[in-house]
Amino acid sequence: MPAYTHHAFVCTNVRPPENPKGCCAAKGSPELVAAFKAALERHGLHGTAKVTSSGCLGPCARGVTMVVYPEGTWYGGVTLDDVETIVSEHFVGGTPVARLVMT
Amino acid sequence: MPAYTHHAFVCTNVRPPENPKGCCAAKGSPELVAAFKAALERHGLHGTAKVTSSGCLGPCARGVTMVVYPEGTWYGGVTLDDVETIVSEHFVGGTPVARLVMT
Repeated sequence: MPAYTHHAFVCTNVRPPENPKGCCAAKGSPELVAAFKAALERHGLHGTAKVTSSGCLGPCARGVTMVVYPEGTWYGGVTLDDVETIVSEHFVGGTPVARLVMT
Repeated sequence: MPAYTHHAFVCTNVRPPENPKGCCAAKGSPELVAAFKAALERHGLHGTAKVTSSGCLGPCARGVTMVVYPEGTWYGGVTLDDVETIVSEHFVGGTPVARLVMT
């Protein structure tokens, strides 16, 4: 199996609108996954990096949340505007985007 | 954020029954996720290991598929009967279950 340099899991969990926890899907995470896949293609990373949707990752209040393995970088509050930055600076450049890292 | 010793992603992708690729959901992966969560509790691994459902991981014909990070171990053909073995031998014991590893 491929040993991806970066395998990102983006939470696409869905909760009912009345749930006080909210959910990443309501914050646009399905569109984020599609944007990440397009960005990987654009940067020629098909087969070396991968983005997969995931169930609930935990820190719901800080969604959209995602985790990048194997290094284990957790991002929160990710929006469509951040996709190109994450792919170019982190997946290509090797430096996580500090302002989005959850600690 | 927690640095899990083992963060497993189990494919729960759904495809229509007529799709020739099949899908991991039809092979019982949602029940697998629940069984993994129960096994983690049983072994006292809550907070140190985690199991999350995921979208399509790729090798559909070899489902149920899963990947364990940060080490990047890929398993295929996983069934309910394998859950206790994976948790006790791999997550607790530290040795991946060789017969299920996809290469």
